[in-house]
Order: sequence, then structure tokens, then C-alpha cells
Amino acid sequence: MRTASVGVFKVATTGPGDVSGLMAMIGSGAIDPATILAILGKTEGNGGVNDFTREYAVAALCTALASELGLSPEAVEQRIAFVMSGGTEGVLSPHITVFTRREAERPAGMSGKRLSIGMAHTRDFLPEEIGRSAQIMETARAVSAAMADAGIIDPADVHFVQIKCPLLTSDRVEAANARGSKTATTSAYSSMAYSRGASALGVAVALGEIDSDVHDDDVLRRYDLFSSVASTSSGIELMHNVIIVLGNSASSASDFEIGHAVMNDAIDAPAVVSALNSVGLGVGLGVAPRATEGREFVNIFAKAEASPDGSVRGFRHTMLEDTDISSTRHARAAVGGLIAGLAGTGAVYVSGGAEHQGPAGGGPVAAIARLS
Amino acid sequence: MRTASVGVFKVATTGPGDVSGLMAMIGSGAIDPATILAILGKTEGNGGVNDFTREYAVAALCTALASELGLSPEAVEQRIAFVMSGGTEGVLSPHITVFTRREAERPAGMSGKRLSIGMAHTRDFLPEEIGRSAQIMETARAVSAAMADAGIIDPADVHFVQIKCPLLTSDRVEAANARGSKTATTSAYSSMAYSRGASALGVAVALGEIDSDVHDDDVLRRYDLFSSVASTSSGIELMHNVIIVLGNSASSASDFEIGHAVMNDAIDAPAVVSALNSVGLGVGLGVAPRATEGREFVNIFAKAEASPDGSVRGFRHTMLEDTDISSTRHARAAVGGLIAGLAGTGAVYVSGGAEHQGPAGGGPVAAIARLS
Amino acid sequence: MRTASVGVFKVATTGPGDVSGLMAMIGSGAIDPATILAILGKTEGNGGVNDFTREYAVAALCTALASELGLSPEAVEQRIAFVMSGGTEGVLSPHITVFTRREAERPAGMSGKRLSIGMAHTRDFLPEEIGRSAQIMETARAVSAAMADAGIIDPADVHFVQIKCPLLTSDRVEAANARGSKTATTSAYSSMAYSRGASALGVAVALGEIDSDVHDDDVLRRYDLFSSVASTSSGIELMHNVIIVLGNSASSASDFEIGHAVMNDAIDAPAVVSALNSVGLGVGLGVAPRATEGREFVNIFAKAEASPDGSVRGFRHTMLEDTDISSTRHARAAVGGLIAGLAGTGAVYVSGGAEHQGPAGGGPVAAIARLS
Amino acid sequence: MRTASVGVFKVATTGPGDVSGLMAMIGSGAIDPATILAILGKTEGNGGVNDFTREYAVAALCTALASELGLSPEAVEQRIAFVMSGGTEGVLSPHITVFTRREAERPAGMSGKRLSIGMAHTRDFLPEEIGRSAQIMETARAVSAAMADAGIIDPADVHFVQIKCPLLTSDRVEAANARGSKTATTSAYSSMAYSRGASALGVAVALGEIDSDVHDDDVLRRYDLFSSVASTSSGIELMHNVIIVLGNSASSASDFEIGHAVMNDAIDAPAVVSALNSVGLGVGLGVAPRATEGREFVNIFAKAEASPDGSVRGFRHTMLEDTDISSTRHARAAVGGLIAGLAGTGAVYVSGGAEHQGPAGGGPVAAIARLS
Repeated sequence: MRTASVGVFKVATTGPGDVSGLMAMIGSGAIDPATILAILGKTEGNGGVNDFTREYAVAALCTALASELGLSPEAVEQRIAFVMSGGTEGVLSPHITVFTRREAERPAGMSGKRLSIGMAHTRDFLPEEIGRSAQIMETARAVSAAMADAGIIDPADVHFVQIKCPLLTSDRVEAANARGSKTATTSAYSSMAYSRGASALGVAVALGEIDSDVHDDDVLRRYDLFSSVASTSSGIELMHNVIIVLGNSASSASDFEIGHAVMNDAIDAPAVVSALNSVGLGVGLGVAPRATEGREFVNIFAKAEASPDGSVRGFRHTMLEDTDISSTRHARAAVGGLIAGLAGTGAVYVSGGAEHQGPAGGGPVAAIARLS
Repeated sequence: MRTASVGVFKVATTGPGDVSGLMAMIGSGAIDPATILAILGKTEGNGGVNDFTREYAVAALCTALASELGLSPEAVEQRIAFVMSGGTEGVLSPHITVFTRREAERPAGMSGKRLSIGMAHTRDFLPEEIGRSAQIMETARAVSAAMADAGIIDPADVHFVQIKCPLLTSDRVEAANARGSKTATTSAYSSMAYSRGASALGVAVALGEIDSDVHDDDVLRRYDLFSSVASTSSGIELMHNVIIVLGNSASSASDFEIGHAVMNDAIDAPAVVSALNSVGLGVGLGVAPRATEGREFVNIFAKAEASPDGSVRGFRHTMLEDTDISSTRHARAAVGGLIAGLAGTGAVYVSGGAEHQGPAGGGPVAAIARLS
Repeated sequence: MRTASVGVFKVATTGPGDVSGLMAMIGSGAIDPATILAILGKTEGNGGVNDFTREYAVAALCTALASELGLSPEAVEQRIAFVMSGGTEGVLSPHITVFTRREAERPAGMSGKRLSIGMAHTRDFLPEEIGRSAQIMETARAVSAAMADAGIIDPADVHFVQIKCPLLTSDRVEAANARGSKTATTSAYSSMAYSRGASALGVAVALGEIDSDVHDDDVLRRYDLFSSVASTSSGIELMHNVIIVLGNSASSASDFEIGHAVMNDAIDAPAVVSALNSVGLGVGLGVAPRATEGREFVNIFAKAEASPDGSVRGFRHTMLEDTDISSTRHARAAVGGLIAGLAGTGAVYVSGGAEHQGPAGGGPVAAIARLS
Repeated sequence: MRTASVGVFKVATTGPGDVSGLMAMIGSGAIDPATILAILGKTEGNGGVNDFTREYAVAALCTALASELGLSPEAVEQRIAFVMSGGTEGVLSPHITVFTRREAERPAGMSGKRLSIGMAHTRDFLPEEIGRSAQIMETARAVSAAMADAGIIDPADVHFVQIKCPLLTSDRVEAANARGSKTATTSAYSSMAYSRGASALGVAVALGEIDSDVHDDDVLRRYDLFSSVASTSSGIELMHNVIIVLGNSASSASDFEIGHAVMNDAIDAPAVVSALNSVGLGVGLGVAPRATEGREFVNIFAKAEASPDGSVRGFRHTMLEDTDISSTRHARAAVGGLIAGLAGTGAVYVSGGAEHQGPAGGGPVAAIARLS
């Protein structure tokens, strides 16, 4: 097994088209562009169907990295996994997190498992497979492949699985119809939830969180079935799933460590603290976020959603009935406020739409710390 | 000095027109309608200029209480102070908090100061006085009167001062112009901020938080001048300020106690914990909100705003540039998420627009506990 | 057959709770409150799930009319049909249109058919009947009854059929489930469209616009099936359909006349002109709206929607992909702008959600004129 | 004087990053990229401060044209005037209009004045000059230069003057303060209106529509001072004004003609018809938009705004009080609906924010036709 060193760099942005921070770090030698494996970003659009800040950010990054890598922008987009999550409601702050990986010797004195990253992808799906068991099972297979790529053997060492998955368009629905097949839904917006949900269930199957006996009908219905580490987002630009596994591995020589917890609802402060604690970060008296000696906070990755039953701990919320603001924006703002308060910064990755990603109304929360 | 018993009742609502919860408590004898002094509510509108849920809620409450009190709805609105704060973004949950007061003997064994409530109002303002020193000074005077009404002598015993204040309409601006006077602003929306700001500065003067040498030009400019306990909201229905002082008094026989802290920014978790601690409520290991023996959480009252400098602890926020969602909605959602996480419930009173109420980007946070 | 005189009064409002205009007309004797049959209004909420301006307006009207009629507010709500359409986007202006009816001799010299109004309602529906053939068929029956009530024999004399219909809530869905029945949808929001659609198809069946052989599966799918005069809106407060038929009748002694046309898409200016022409109103040179001699414009009633195929006359629209503004708001604003331009006033009734009401992307447009 | 041929090409876009339509026309030879002078576009963002679709569209166009022109993207942005107007509310359809100019002999038989285009720019402004007489006067001078560039002598031949102008940022405000100067406003959002207004007044001065004796205080106050052909939009990317004059000239050999009218309010249908008529386009019986023989509709360019007095022809509108949707979005949707209805297409250029551009609540409306 290859021994790798994984780097994590959080870079603030001044707008969706801003690449100056990343370029400066490349210019200074802090980041070797050839080692960039994935970039997860928060952009400041509405996070909905017409959020163009995501594709604008990817286009700007691809154009900027193209000359650095001697590739065309299109080739850059194929080589690096870009996951842009739209929506920086409330105190959330636009930024990107750059993950690098290069082969490296593990220093003799290094102890414990360290941050590792692995990637894989599924085959292209037929439109009628999206949101159904075919997508679940192919995703499960690819998660296992990504774990292998990351040098992770024990599913318990997997702490965050980010997936990009496809959605349905009217063209794709028609193509299925033409073959005599029916898709899970005919609405583009709904298909995003189906695809996210099936992908998350695939993670749960791969990690043994749920039984592999999952059915088409369970998607978006059996919310007791979920993965505690899945974070999935659907996009129009692909027909397959891209899987990014983040975990800890004995074969990693990274300075970073990752851990996670599960928020049971949108106000589950103890879960956030638990995620921070899991990587040795303390939250001191008076809940002041605190750097522990030798441990530095890097970022938190979490999913948020409005609880489908319309209430949080017995009190009604109004997110699902608001025709002015989509519930995902509400949920990101609220969970972002809580996590920012406990982490001491709004530069955290909180993404919306958590179907089968954590329990209904809750979601996974992972933390990365740097060890010095 | 009169000895009074002050009661606090938090009642969930199913909509802005829902009065069933309050009526049930009146029906059961839990609340004597004749003792109701003030009702502070969170309603589920947008909290902006066209938020009709506030006046709808007041109209529904006045109509329902009219028959209980043998008064006309208009007379009920004169008798009871209604303060409806629009906007239950994120996990915030619509509810009302009913404050009652009746004369009562203080039990022999009762120790310490207890929750007290006092009210007062200013004279009507001329349009050109709104947002200026006249409003500041008259408010300061009325705050002192409300303190006396509450039986509070030491300003340090004042923990929350809720004020309703007027705004400018085009008719009012024209009336001033006709007299040859210029108003602080000609925009109705801006006048809300001016009126809130001047009113908050009045509280600060009354409590000695700032020097009484405040000038017209300081309003909405000198953000280093603020009150740590003021919470002001402007409405079209009045031309004077209504002041509600909440604090602790030795002459109160209440089962409740109030305390406060100041959030220095929108993610100031320790301040929220401090406010809870100030009334003997603990936040346990892992930040679990926890009922301390003999102390029960009732509600939190806080103000939230997007920091005017566009950043929170060095990271850019996007609340002030969002043309789709007003910054007050963003701020309430984020601060509401944090407070709900630490208090363990979304049924808390978080209101937007915190000019001169706490430091720029922050705001006051008060907590009420019931002692048993 | 009874001979009736139908009156139509358009009254501007200064807010959803404003009843002063109507009260003034009652006070002056212009309107006899005992003759009020129906009130159709435009209120200034978002027209979506959380638009409380509709129920606020109804509550205010019922309270105000209660004392005039010597009834309780609840009894007023049972007696008069209130249809409030939320959403006054763009130039649309909040107002109510009051329809009165009283027995009257038809003057000897009166010629032609005149405005007539009839009402009827269906039985209560089971949740599983909503959006399906049961609702279609019961509605068809009730439309015929309302025609009879209006003294209209020929379906061609029916020009606008306004229907209030129920929607599904989670409680209602569960009630159906408990009986082993499945509802057409489990989403409250979607059920509004199903109920509107089935109700409109009921109108089409009653008037012979489509064959009575309509199936459950046709609702929200066969958009070639529609009524040219149906205008339906769903509300949570009822489980049956209320039908208001507006047309012309020889047994009417009204000073008013109604006509209609069908907009084939959202920019169908000629249809609007045709509707105006149908009641003798001209649109002069340069499209200036013009009062014809002896004919005075009263109001236009129209339905608007974003065309489901995403384009208008071959050019893409962005209404269905906008996560910030719901497509119904977009559609009302655009169609409202066109109709206001041709009618010369923004005080027109343009309502959103036109499933099976006119062709896909279009909708019915009716005009009422007063003859002198 | 140079004789020029001006071309106008309207190209639909599938998204803000879509350049395929323009590239196809360049590929087919229909457009020579070297002749492109200006591109005016409608993009599908919110048209507000955080509308990134404008800069995304410009970035995509510059990148695509760079290789065609053998220039860097930055050089393309310097060479071609890009004006992107955000907001395609209602039926408005995203598209770009490409203006080309090349030297050409005027054919012997060509009669009448034809479409001409001229450009110019002012010097950079100091922050404290924005929104004040310095900006007005420099703009007036540059408009005259652009007229000369267009070969237009008579101001009556100018039918549309598009201007890009700067806005204030906090950095720019501080820079002025550091020099001891005060800016017209400290708010970025407000400064956009000031800059648009002063620029429009500059056009009015240049064309003799108003006296040159305009004062700082008149900006955003004296709404009786306006230009009937100015269309101005402010952007963060420049500190000077860019002026594009569109008119008719005897020295033009273009196949196109331009004309204009002024909408007196947002529902001024006759003005739209008049603009169409002015270039020989008829609006037939029943207001059907109609191609006149030898005349083909190309595009309409108009500005829209919510009338500042809160009403349209005596009826209240709610655009200025809506905290959920900005008034510019409302106004574009409504005026776009009217113009689309009369032009027969939603692919028209309707832009928001019409301070001193036409009378208060109204705006200029220009039409371009192609002659065959």
C-alpha cells in the first residue's frame, strides 16, 4: 500500500470568481498544484436550481489551474474533483478547502492513524436508475473502492464521504420514456433529492451502517435508514457518482486528523462538540472554542436540513411552509450559526439537503484538525 | 413601594391568528387576563416592512381578550403592551410570552431579588424628533419612570428593556417639511433604524451606560455607544415610545429571575452560556442544555444583526449584499440557531435590527428562569 | 325563475386588514350588506403556503360585517363566499370586488343578457378523493347547480367560474392511510395543484368543454384538457368545493355585463383585448384603454402561470428554475403588467396557479363592464 | 466622416455561461468578431448587489472571444463594451444583443438615416464626484463625443444612450474621507442609484433635454429632470463612465433603424406601441404584434422602476414595501410582461433602476427594426 501525505488548505474567497487566494498559495509554493485531488467549496449563491455561483467558481478555478498544470480547463475539471456547495446564509463565509495528496514516507516517530483521502467513481447511470437500488449498489461498490484508494480498511475509520451525483432533466426523462422505462420522478428538483438519498444509502450499505437489502421504495421514505458520514450533492454536469472518502489511515503521513459525530436534530450542539473533541479539539468553559495544545482547528463539514415532520424537539418550525425562502437556506443558516458559534468561525462547510444523511432533521458533522 | 408578583408564560402558536393556547390557559385559570401587562411574541412573517403577521397577531389577541376583559379590542390594545417581532427563520418557533403582574405579599422566606416588570411611555414625538436627541432624552426619562414602576433602583438590576418606537411615513415627513423642519431621513425603512437606534441610546443614557452628551450625529454612526440591555422595535401604529423594563427587584414576589449578557458578535456562544448561567441554568458537559435543580428554563430574549463591517471574526459574511434575503432574516436565522442549540429549544425570542443595542454585529441576550 | 339584480363594487384597500372602504360604502348606503353574496380580493402576501394576508383579510371582513349583519364572525364566513387571492406583484394593486344580489324586477326596456351570479357547493370530500375523478364529478354537478342558481341555461353564457377547493394536510393524509386509502399526493403544496386541477376539470365537464370521461391519471398530466372559464384556488379551511358562477342571464336586471377570452400564453395581448371587447370596451389607437360610450370598465379576472415547458413562444423563461421567487409570483407579475397596461389600471384580479384553467401556460381572462 | 455599417444580432442563451450561440454565429461567418463593438445582455440573476451572473457572463464571453481575437480575456474586456443587465423576471428571456460596426460604403439607393453606434468614456472619477455635478458634466461631454463617434449631429437622432458607471465601495468612501472629502452616500447600494442618476442627468444635459444648470442636490430629488433616452447601470469594476450612443445617422449604411418613446408610467402601453411604430413596426387589430412589410422586429430596450410615490394611476402598488422581493425585480417583471405582450416575445431588454431616466415611475423605451 502506498503511503501518502494528505494536505488540507482552507482559503477564503472574495466572490465566486475569486481564485487569488489559491493562486497566491501556489505562487508561494505552499500548494503544489499537481497534488490537488479535490476542492470542496462554499459559494454564495442560493444553493438552489438557479445557483450559478457553483459553476462559475468551478469555471474560474479550472481556468486558473489550467495554465499551472499545462492542461485545458476541461482536462482540469476531469482531473480534480470539484464540489461546490451553494449557500452561505447567515454567518457562513465563502471559502474553499483544497485537499492535496502526494506519496510520502511516513516519519518513523509518527503515531496513530492520520487523514487519508480516496476517490472512485461509478459507471454512468441510466436515467431510470437514478434514485433507485442500482444507484445505491453501484455507489456502495465505489465507496469500497475509494476506501481502498485511501488505504482505509476499517469502516469505522471513514468519517466523511462526499459524493457528487447526477440529476434528471426533461431530456433524460424523455430518453427513459422512449425506452419504455419510467424514472423515479419527472421533476428535476425532486430528482436531486432522490439521487442524493440513493447515494447516501449506498454509503450506508458500503460501511455496513444498514443492511444491503434496500429497496427502491425505501428511498425518501424509510428515513430510519441513513449513513452517519455521507454528504451528497447532485449536479447536472455528470451521469455517474464521484466518491471522495475522507478518513484516517495508518498508511497516511498526514499532519491532519479527521473525526465525526451525528447531529440528531438541527440544534444538536453536543454532537458538534463531540466532533470537535474527536480530533482533540476542546470547547472550554463557557463554550469558548479553544485550540488544544498541538491541535489546530481546520474545518467542519456538515449537512443540514429542515426536519420533515415540521418540528424540532416538539416545537414547530416554519422552514417547510416558507414560500419566500427555501427550507435548505433556512437550515444552512441555522445550523451554520450553531456550528460557527461552537467552532469560533463562520468559515465552515455546511451544506443543505440531508436525505438519508444522518437521521431525519439531523446530519453528519465531521471535523478536521491539524497536528503540530 | 408596592410588592408585586410577576408571572411569565410561554405559549406556542400554530399561526399568527392562533390564540387558542392563551385562551386555554385563561380558561383553566392558569392566567388571569386582568393581570396581563405585556405580550412579547415571535410571528412567522418576514420581519420587514410588509410583515402583516404582527398586526394580525395583535388584532387576533385583542379580539380574543376583549370579551374576557369586557373591553373593546381597541381598549385592550391600549391597556396591554403588545410587541410582536416578525421572523422565525431557521429553527425559531412561533410563540408568545405573556407577562402578568398583580399585587402580592412577598413570602417571608423568599430571598434575593426576583423578576419585576415596569412600564412607561414618552410623549408623542414630532416627526423631526425621531432618530434624534429629543427621542433619546425623552426615552431616557421614560426608562427611569419604568424602573420606578418596576421597583428597581439599581441600574445593574435592569436586564432587558423592550421598547416600541415610531417610524416615519411620507405623510409624517411632509408634515415636518410643511413646518420647515427636516426629518432625519425621508425613507420609511431607514427611519425604523433611526428610531430603534435613538431609543436604544435613550436606554443607555438612563442606565448610565453612556454619557448623556449624545448628539444627533451619533445615531447610526457612533456604534461604540450602545446599551447592553436595550431591545427596540419600531412600528407604524404609534408616535411615542412604549418602554417595558425587565429586571430583578427586592420588592418582587415572583417565582422568576432574569439575567443577561452581551453577545460581542453573532457567534458569541460564551455570552449565551453566560446569560443562562446568570439565572442559575447550567450548560453541561458536551454543551447539553441542562435544567439545574430548582431552576427551569423559560425563555431567552436576544437581538441579532449582520455586523455592519461585513465580517465576523475576520471572515467575510454575505448578509448585507444579499438582494434576495434581507440581512435581518439572515441574522435571526444564524443567531437563532446558536441560541436554540445552547438553550435546547427553538422557542426563543430572537429579534432583528440591533442598532446601538449591544456592540456592532452583536446584541443583548437575556434569560429568564423559573425557581421552584 | 327569480329575477335578480347583481351589483359589482371594486374597493381599494390600504392593507390586508383594511375594511374602511367597504364600511364607508355600507355607511353611505351604496352597498346593502345583507345583499353581499361573494367577495373576491387581491391581498398583498406572497400567494404561497405561508401567505397569512388571505386569512387576515377574511377575518377582518367577517369581524367588520358581523355587527352590520347581526351575526357572529363565524356565521358571516358561512354566509358570504370569500375568495382571497394572495400576491400583488408588480403593478397589481390590492383591492376587493364585492358582488351583491337582490331580487328585482327587470325594467321593461332592458335588453340583452346581464350579469348574473350563482353559488353552490359540493359535499365534503374524503382526502383520497381530492385531485381525482370524485372531485371532478361532484364539482361538475355543483357547477350545474350554481348555473341554475344564476338563472343561466346556456353554458356559453358562463364566463367565469371561481372555485374554492380543499387541500391535503398531513393529518388528512394519515386519516386516509388509516382507512387503507392512498391520497393523490402526500405533499400539502402539491395537493393544492391537484385540487385546483380536478376542480377546473369539473367545470370543463359541466360546461361540455371536455368529455365527461376524465380519469384520475389525467389530472396534472393531460394539459390539453381544460376549462376556458375556470379559476380555482385551494385553501386549508374547507373540505368541500364552493362554486361561484359568473355569467350573463336574461333573467338578470343588473347594470353589468361579463365576457371572457382565453390567453393562449402569458403574453397573449390580443386575448386581453378580446375580453375587453366582448363587453363593449374599446382599446383605442395606440392601445390606449378607452371607455366606450355607455360602458365603463369595472374589473378583469384572470389566471396566470409559468408555462410548464419552460418557454414562451420559443424563448426560454426562467420562472420555474428560480429558487428565490416562486413561479406563481413571477407569472402574476408579468401577466398583471400586461393586463394592467391594456386595462389602464393595476387594480385587476390576476391569480396564480392555472392547472387545467386555460391551456398550459395560458389562462382564462374575463372582463366586467358597467352599462349606463 | 467615416461611413459605417452597424449590425445587430440577438442571440438566446441557455445560461449565464453559455456562449455557444455567439460562437456558432462567428463560426458560420455571420458575425466577424473583430467588428464587435458592444454586447448588451440580459442575464438571469437577481439584478441586485449579489448578482454574479453578470460578471460570469462577461468572463465567459471574454474567454471565448479571446482566442477568436488573439487577445487575452482582459484585453477583450477593454476592447468591447459589455453591459449585462441582471434579472429576467416573469416572461423575460435571457439573451445577448451584439452590436458590430465596420467601415462601409453607403449604397447609392439607400435613403433615410440608419442605425449608428458611437462610444466614448469619461476620465476616472474621484469617489466624492460620483452622483454629483462632476459626474454629470463629464458624462455630458462624453455623450457629445460618442455622438460624434456615431456620426450623429442632431440630438433628436439619439434614441438610446446606454451608460456603465461606477459605484462606491467602503474602500472608496474611506479614501475620500482620508482626503477630507465626503461622498454623496456611504452605502454601496445607494451609491448605485446616485451614479445612475447623475449619469442620466449628464445625458439630459448633453442632449439639451434639461438646462446645464444642474446641482448636486438635484440628483435623486428633482425627478422632473430626466433624459428620455438614458439607460444607466452601475458596476463595481470601473471608476469612469462608458457611454454607448445609439441613434440614426445619414452616414450609416446599416440595415437597421432605431426609434424611441417614453413610458410615463409602468403601464404605458401606448408608449410601447409608439416606439414600435417609430421604426415602422405595426401593432395590428387586437394588438397582435405584426411584422410590417420590409420591417422586422429586432429588440426593445427599456428601463423600468417602481414609481417612487407608491402608486400607478392612483392605485397603490406594493413594490416598495416588499421585503422579500426587491422593487427592481417587481418592476422588470411587470414592464417586461407588458412589453413582451406588445412585441410578441419575451426576448427583450428590460432593465431596472430608472432614476432620472424618463419620468418618475416611467422610463425610456427604444425599438430597433431591421429593414430588408
